[in-house]
Amino acid sequence: MFIKEIGEFGLIDRLARKLGQPDESVIVGIGDDAAVLQVKEGYQVVMTTDMLVEGVHFLPQTISFHNLGFKSVAVSISDIAAMGGIPKHAVISLAIPPMVHVESLESLYEGVAEICSQHGTHVVGGDIVKIQERLVISVTLLGEVETGRALLRSGAKPGDVVFVSGTVGGSAAGLSLLQGEGDRVSVTERDKLIEFHQRPEPQVLLGRLLQQSGSCTSCNDISDGLASELNEIAQASGVGMEIDRLAIPIHSAVRSFASAVQKDPLDFALFGGEDYQLVGTARADGFPALQMRAREMGISLTRIGIVTKEKGVWLTSGGQEPRLIEAKGYCHF
Amino acid sequence: MFIKEIGEFGLIDRLARKLGQPDESVIVGIGDDAAVLQVKEGYQVVMTTDMLVEGVHFLPQTISFHNLGFKSVAVSISDIAAMGGIPKHAVISLAIPPMVHVESLESLYEGVAEICSQHGTHVVGGDIVKIQERLVISVTLLGEVETGRALLRSGAKPGDVVFVSGTVGGSAAGLSLLQGEGDRVSVTERDKLIEFHQRPEPQVLLGRLLQQSGSCTSCNDISDGLASELNEIAQASGVGMEIDRLAIPIHSAVRSFASAVQKDPLDFALFGGEDYQLVGTARADGFPALQMRAREMGISLTRIGIVTKEKGVWLTSGGQEPRLIEAKGYCHF
Repeated sequence: MFIKEIGEFGLIDRLARKLGQPDESVIVGIGDDAAVLQVKEGYQVVMTTDMLVEGVHFLPQTISFHNLGFKSVAVSISDIAAMGGIPKHAVISLAIPPMVHVESLESLYEGVAEICSQHGTHVVGGDIVKIQERLVISVTLLGEVETGRALLRSGAKPGDVVFVSGTVGGSAAGLSLLQGEGDRVSVTERDKLIEFHQRPEPQVLLGRLLQQSGSCTSCNDISDGLASELNEIAQASGVGMEIDRLAIPIHSAVRSFASAVQKDPLDFALFGGEDYQLVGTARADGFPALQMRAREMGISLTRIGIVTKEKGVWLTSGGQEPRLIEAKGYCHF
Repeated sequence: MFIKEIGEFGLIDRLARKLGQPDESVIVGIGDDAAVLQVKEGYQVVMTTDMLVEGVHFLPQTISFHNLGFKSVAVSISDIAAMGGIPKHAVISLAIPPMVHVESLESLYEGVAEICSQHGTHVVGGDIVKIQERLVISVTLLGEVETGRALLRSGAKPGDVVFVSGTVGGSAAGLSLLQGEGDRVSVTERDKLIEFHQRPEPQVLLGRLLQQSGSCTSCNDISDGLASELNEIAQASGVGMEIDRLAIPIHSAVRSFASAVQKDPLDFALFGGEDYQLVGTARADGFPALQMRAREMGISLTRIGIVTKEKGVWLTSGGQEPRLIEAKGYCHF
């Protein structure tokens, strides 16, 4: 079915029906000039926004509408997680080419509803407009964080441990695989890599743990790539880092794939991006307890290096000469 | 200068420099994973979002980058005004074609800064991405409103006065003029109509007056057109309306232009849209005081009709048969 058959308002009705019931923090939801939201006393608002463009951020041939909806909101939830916040309220705007089917958009909204329900997040508004060539998705997400307690990028101190959660490089390997090198690895590995790419898991619980621990000194989520995020923390904090090449957690499926396509798995890990894991720093004396509590929650937290007084982010590797890790993430222009 | 010469981060630096200093409600602004914002005690958050697409919502030949920036934020501020709120924090995402000059985007941000400084609103974040064909702008705005006191669409009661602020139809006449019929009116009228179209004035002060008066029972801002907004209020409130054709406030420049192009000025007024005036209902006994207080603030508030128990929005005109005003505003699909 084409949108013109049911009109803009007909489409909004259908999409809204895919969403769950909002909680009591949503005083006015979809349908008025603006949403009205209640913020808990003692909390501040955390606000983030991301825009995704077809052909730039996603390709119709490498992600379904369902997973596109899931991922579009997941990337914003990940930003709230990196601040140690709780994701609460989203608005979603879509610029839609005329030939996109209503059913595809319903599927996209089922993906949105799936990730939202996982995190107690509610869609409270949006905008739907026409565009000729390609789908554009804009998500703005509000979260809450205890007043004065947001995790920033700027608190890293020399001597702190540098850590990363989960594994890195999986999303980039998954995309590379989806773009045509899928027959080089086992089916299990293939599925894992595709999942890394299409269905990132924002680390909200970990962000809360880090924020409440009192020993986490900085935090970032991995959107542009580990190299880029480490440099952002180092610059914002006015410090440097030494990262141990062998300590960087890379999933075995990424290693298999990299080997099959004759690439260095480290390139996926450092420069791939879109892992949506958390990277940050913690006081050395507090890190073991943090790591243990994360493990109890089923989350791996790996020490990958140390914060230094000397500027620059350096990769060390056994006896070899350290090399500078540059912030080359994805650049649009 | 092209963006590729300075990169995405170079561009963000340049645009951020166009913005004023944020106030103390902005705990963390541009530069981290998310902004951190302080909401005043006793207030709720009001949240709205709008997406504007080149060739659909604006044409390069009918609006400058400066005024495009101004208007993009003005339309969202208008939504906050319609809720009776105070606009506070904006995030702006841009999808930019590669051939757009850095200077054009700086100019756009000067327009953003102009409207923001008029309303004490601060840009606290955004996203900048590439697109091939056409500029897309997404603005999400947060406002504050006293807890439980937001103006909704749903409170109109039979017997209430229907009012509109300022004049209507000017923006549509201005667009029509800019698209090629500019030599039909005087220079003064021409300038006025272009201003209506390019530089709408969101009615924040009026929204606050209406919200605090206690006698305003519903409110909407005019984005899609007076006809569409009246129908939205009537539907949301489960009532009808009788609108007096002769009472609808139409600027003399719109009348001149309509006459010159042989159109009915009422079509611009009812179906034109983008006036960003406020339309709403108020208790009949409270309206005269409301009107007087608005006049003291330099704002005209015109009684254009009455709320009825019978459904439908009807246009009455002297001895003529009433006719139904349908909600035909702009439909994208």
